[in-house]
Amino acid sequence: MELTKHVPLLLLFTLFLFRAKLVLGERSSYIVHMDKSFMPKAFSSHNHWYSFTINSLKSLSPESSGVHRKPLQLVYTYNNAFHGFSALLSEDELKALEKSPGFVSAYSDRNVTLDTTHTFEFLSLNPKTGLWPASDYGKDVIVGVIDTGVWPESRSFNDDGMTEVPKRWKGICQVGQEFNPSMCNKKLIGVRYFNKGIIAANPNTTISMNSGRDTEGHGTHTSSTAAGNYVEGASFFGYASGTARGMAPRARVAMYKVIFEEGRYASDVLAGMDQAVADGVDVISISMGFDAVPLYQDPIAIASFGAMEKGVLVSSSAGNERRIGSLHNGIPWVLTVAAGSIDRFFIGSLSLGNGVTITGWTMFPASALVTDLPLIYNKTFSSCNSSSALSTVGYGIVICENGYVSEQIEYISKSKAAAAIFISNDTEIFEFSDFGYPGVVIGAKDASKVIDYATNGVNPSASITFQQTLVGAKPAPVVASYTSRGPAPSYPGILKPDIMAPGTLVLASWIPNTPTAYIGSNIALTSDFVAVSGTSMACPHASGIAALLKGAHPEWSPAAIRSAMMTTANPLDNTQHSIRDPIFNYEFATPLAMGAGHVDPNQALDPGLIYDAMPQDYVNLLCSMNFTRNQIATITRSSYNCSNPSSDLNYPSFISLYTNNTSSTLVQSFQRTVTNVGDDVTSYTALVMAPSGSTVTVYPTKLVFGEKYEKQSYSLTMKYSSNSRGAITFGSIIWVEDNGKHSVRSPIVVSPMIHVW
Amino acid sequence: MELTKHVPLLLLFTLFLFRAKLVLGERSSYIVHMDKSFMPKAFSSHNHWYSFTINSLKSLSPESSGVHRKPLQLVYTYNNAFHGFSALLSEDELKALEKSPGFVSAYSDRNVTLDTTHTFEFLSLNPKTGLWPASDYGKDVIVGVIDTGVWPESRSFNDDGMTEVPKRWKGICQVGQEFNPSMCNKKLIGVRYFNKGIIAANPNTTISMNSGRDTEGHGTHTSSTAAGNYVEGASFFGYASGTARGMAPRARVAMYKVIFEEGRYASDVLAGMDQAVADGVDVISISMGFDAVPLYQDPIAIASFGAMEKGVLVSSSAGNERRIGSLHNGIPWVLTVAAGSIDRFFIGSLSLGNGVTITGWTMFPASALVTDLPLIYNKTFSSCNSSSALSTVGYGIVICENGYVSEQIEYISKSKAAAAIFISNDTEIFEFSDFGYPGVVIGAKDASKVIDYATNGVNPSASITFQQTLVGAKPAPVVASYTSRGPAPSYPGILKPDIMAPGTLVLASWIPNTPTAYIGSNIALTSDFVAVSGTSMACPHASGIAALLKGAHPEWSPAAIRSAMMTTANPLDNTQHSIRDPIFNYEFATPLAMGAGHVDPNQALDPGLIYDAMPQDYVNLLCSMNFTRNQIATITRSSYNCSNPSSDLNYPSFISLYTNNTSSTLVQSFQRTVTNVGDDVTSYTALVMAPSGSTVTVYPTKLVFGEKYEKQSYSLTMKYSSNSRGAITFGSIIWVEDNGKHSVRSPIVVSPMIHVW
Repeated sequence: MELTKHVPLLLLFTLFLFRAKLVLGERSSYIVHMDKSFMPKAFSSHNHWYSFTINSLKSLSPESSGVHRKPLQLVYTYNNAFHGFSALLSEDELKALEKSPGFVSAYSDRNVTLDTTHTFEFLSLNPKTGLWPASDYGKDVIVGVIDTGVWPESRSFNDDGMTEVPKRWKGICQVGQEFNPSMCNKKLIGVRYFNKGIIAANPNTTISMNSGRDTEGHGTHTSSTAAGNYVEGASFFGYASGTARGMAPRARVAMYKVIFEEGRYASDVLAGMDQAVADGVDVISISMGFDAVPLYQDPIAIASFGAMEKGVLVSSSAGNERRIGSLHNGIPWVLTVAAGSIDRFFIGSLSLGNGVTITGWTMFPASALVTDLPLIYNKTFSSCNSSSALSTVGYGIVICENGYVSEQIEYISKSKAAAAIFISNDTEIFEFSDFGYPGVVIGAKDASKVIDYATNGVNPSASITFQQTLVGAKPAPVVASYTSRGPAPSYPGILKPDIMAPGTLVLASWIPNTPTAYIGSNIALTSDFVAVSGTSMACPHASGIAALLKGAHPEWSPAAIRSAMMTTANPLDNTQHSIRDPIFNYEFATPLAMGAGHVDPNQALDPGLIYDAMPQDYVNLLCSMNFTRNQIATITRSSYNCSNPSSDLNYPSFISLYTNNTSSTLVQSFQRTVTNVGDDVTSYTALVMAPSGSTVTVYPTKLVFGEKYEKQSYSLTMKYSSNSRGAITFGSIIWVEDNGKHSVRSPIVVSPMIHVW
Repeated sequence: MELTKHVPLLLLFTLFLFRAKLVLGERSSYIVHMDKSFMPKAFSSHNHWYSFTINSLKSLSPESSGVHRKPLQLVYTYNNAFHGFSALLSEDELKALEKSPGFVSAYSDRNVTLDTTHTFEFLSLNPKTGLWPASDYGKDVIVGVIDTGVWPESRSFNDDGMTEVPKRWKGICQVGQEFNPSMCNKKLIGVRYFNKGIIAANPNTTISMNSGRDTEGHGTHTSSTAAGNYVEGASFFGYASGTARGMAPRARVAMYKVIFEEGRYASDVLAGMDQAVADGVDVISISMGFDAVPLYQDPIAIASFGAMEKGVLVSSSAGNERRIGSLHNGIPWVLTVAAGSIDRFFIGSLSLGNGVTITGWTMFPASALVTDLPLIYNKTFSSCNSSSALSTVGYGIVICENGYVSEQIEYISKSKAAAAIFISNDTEIFEFSDFGYPGVVIGAKDASKVIDYATNGVNPSASITFQQTLVGAKPAPVVASYTSRGPAPSYPGILKPDIMAPGTLVLASWIPNTPTAYIGSNIALTSDFVAVSGTSMACPHASGIAALLKGAHPEWSPAAIRSAMMTTANPLDNTQHSIRDPIFNYEFATPLAMGAGHVDPNQALDPGLIYDAMPQDYVNLLCSMNFTRNQIATITRSSYNCSNPSSDLNYPSFISLYTNNTSSTLVQSFQRTVTNVGDDVTSYTALVMAPSGSTVTVYPTKLVFGEKYEKQSYSLTMKYSSNSRGAITFGSIIWVEDNGKHSVRSPIVVSPMIHVW
């Protein structure tokens, strides 16, 4: 609990990247990748080999020398998602290690950046038709969530209606502080925690919650969003009330806690993902990311490669950095999820004494009664940012204008006003729940009616209602302002993000012992469900849907699942116009903001065609990058074949990049192969919407399939230009089934190149 | 909605008595009692007769004279509970009317004084045994509630599980403002409203809610307490949460709205009660009373006499005036209900940083988080009643002492403190719900530990939890401090109140558009259930239990039902000691505070013996009073027989009064007759606990019954003294069944006489 007045705490779930501080000569944590084929036969196991390797370094500087405060230490060994270990090493020891047989690469441990329930309706999931019944609500699927832990007592993790745990499950419910194995059940089937990385880096640290128990809320929220059970009577202080449920309400949750209040380390993230794969999860949901790291040093990229090889789809968040090129988790073999809005609006209904009614926004977290109070408008304090000016205000409803609403709420809460009307055109207010005093936000268009009445009316008065939820708001979705936009700095040659899912004010479970709202500056409130925003909330929506698809199509590869979600995603909002992006003045959103569009689970069940990719395809892509062999092996592990390097991955989207110094006309050709996953002999015809100023040529323009699982290939050639103002243009190619129901859409983007390391 | 800062609004439900303001010569409202036997045969109905009577007064001062601003007007006619009418009359007209044939009495219309769900458990009502199953939960019984109206949409009035409305029901669902007949159902079977009295007295008044709809909350609360249906998830801002229900959850509710925001008039109360009897209610619940009026001018006394004659039990509230002799509704033929506490405590758990935990009291109406904050104790501001002194306080938990908690909460809410610990031994705080800032009240005994730690601890800190409810608190019940004590000024010769029922912080339904709690000074909150205190809340508990008894024993008279409740009432609390009275330093409560004791519904089902009384017995009592014939007839209506005046009503309690000028030893003899309502041939032996300083002689001391419904009589003689210090002494007589299960207890009181008008 903070001792000073709070700052809005639920704004965005982004954990900061701390760069490791090196004390000269002191040991620090490294993650070391090894080629297991080099392991001498004498060793019975990889653990044995890694221990021997570390022990062999001891002669370099005996502990008795007292040079190092931290002991030479093996922290984790990894054997599933990749081969290797993490260890506390000095620079000398690292140099010696690099000469060891089987050494592939090593890099410093680093910090991860962390990136809710009408959404099932908004996504048209229903018990009658489509993905829910087709997948039996995901009942045989296990979702591993890499996060801050879980609150097992949350109602979302009750196991009412759950069948027996699948026999193939190899996970455990790890005992720990305030956590015992009986806290798992047929819904929450596994919990483990990983903090050796933190302790290795900070030997004097005491872990304040040394177990899988969540002390932040984030992991409880993400896991309940992906696969929480049904919970009646859920709400965020009366808003968004109803029966909550995860996307895959019958799927199983396994939590891997890798984030602790004391730190968030790459080595722990790696350990959690590695274990999740070993335990047998089908989907990994990871709402966090490492900013500004190359793929071969990004633990999520590394661990997810191994997961992908084993058929585990990794779904991750794009990040909350807003800017073009700020996206993280831009990893070609994972699903990268952007955030959009929900068609839900929390209404503060403003009724003026003259009969005029205006629909505004409020999230004041209590059942406030603001009825027939004097309406007060006075230029001397209407900016609502001066305590002395507001000291003259009496008990009534004050009109506030020309300021920052969150700041004005603070000032109003210290006045004698009963409530306030905040005039603002800033729609980003609607993405956050911080609303610490009774009031309503209305737009400038409506404001004139209010101000006119307040100025010229006789005894002007007004009423405001609270705790009302409107569903069906338009337009929705819009791109979330905070969502990180592509291109992906770690590899801009693949269009990222892949897809957009609901991320704004998502209602899901939270931990009950941390503030989730404030009244005034000092009164902190808790609740067991909260509505919060972030790509962290979008990711588990996609993860849950991926789990449902896995349940319906157990034979599909991670790439097939991703392709199905992308090619069926909806580029339109609920007004049937293109989805818009608020940070670009509500222009149509580019695929750099939302990928292929808004996820459409029922359509993804039956995509018609699929762009598949095998592990070797990703190796071919890595071989095309400017990486060393060891950098590649860090991702792919021991053996890989670089005989066919290709930057042209069989991906269901297209991006062409230009730099300012490129020649005026550029040409890029893509080869794609699609697999018919429909049931019938069929054919498709290409429908191309070329980006403005570009020419797109497709060959052939018709694909004929004689049977299910048949593959057909086509080429797509972009002729495009650089643009001195850095314009982003976009279009699409849709393979439309002839006389059939399937449309297989891929976005096409022309984007300026961004800084890459 | 008030425009200034609120004052605690839920303190006690006592509506004020407004004495009618007379403008010389101006007409005002009178209630006129008529002897219907004088009605000339020429008149087809009483309405016709009363109209003619009024019209005959017109010649006295023609409207054209302009003397009177209000027209001569017949307002109501009454024909069920009593005979007569109300009318706007000048003094001259009244004088003329008094000479009319059949005139009995007339008096000014006057204002009424208005006096919640774990209580069913506290009263041991359960589905397995006792009164609930024996009465089928009251399903054939109709409870008429005379009150402020009802909120028909309240969940307490849903009719899930209710059978068809009894065929004998003659009431209606009266159309009105924001009220249509479809709002009634199988639970809320009738709604009517009565405000002609208000309008007659104030012709220019506009009734702001001209229908049975409740705009205050009081009637919604009392009617749901008596007979509300089951409501899951009820709570008062998280306190007292659970499934709410009325005492008789399957009984029917008929609401008679007689209280309006514009006034509360005797003539309207009379009209409501009169109609309730006509409609066929079984029990009338009336949580209001007229202060300082003789029986023959008390509309409740008058209307309830007619109700009693028709077998309708009237249950009423004792009032909230605290003082000895302040009780209202001390009417010999009604049940007069005092208020007690519930074994429920709303816990604020205080945990100090040194591990000490203290259970305090809080009702802060939100899920506040006050965890590990600095504990602040400083003599310069610890009285917490100075804004300037408190301006130096930072974000932490302040210790407040030596002041009024409600005032200190106000000051703390304007400071930067996160919460406060209020040190107080005032247990009356626990009777009210007003708690507008996070904090906890602890007793002085615990305070030293807190202050010592705050003063001498290293970085002292504390945590407080909210929204916790403890059930099973001891001792309980205690008498409510506010409950009006007897003797009854309107007739002190019958011991009143009769019984005590739960009245403190009773949870029941409320209207959703009025404040039920505040945060700070300015933020008003609403809720659909509230916990409020008053004898208004005790009365409907008794009414609901009476309804259950009526359902189980349809043949019992109102006096029999009352007797069963009184003789089985429990004089002990849950520590098995006598019930205590907080306003007398927690000494044992006298029957002047609690009557026979705390109502015990399951025992009342099978009382063994009954003290019955017939209408003529009450007439005999009235004849013993110093009343004129017309005063008596005002109550009894046309014909009555005063041949056997007797102040010795066959009542299940005993009171002997002394005045300071009485001789040193007084003797009073009582005759009582009990009816065997047990099934067996049986006998009873008297067990007497004489009041201190008195001698009680009973003859015979054994009563033998040869069959059911057999009657036996006994005499009880009190020898007692006056006491110069006004001491109240008390004891009891218990008829204990020989080798049987029944104990039939009556309280005995010796009390100083009080002022009577």
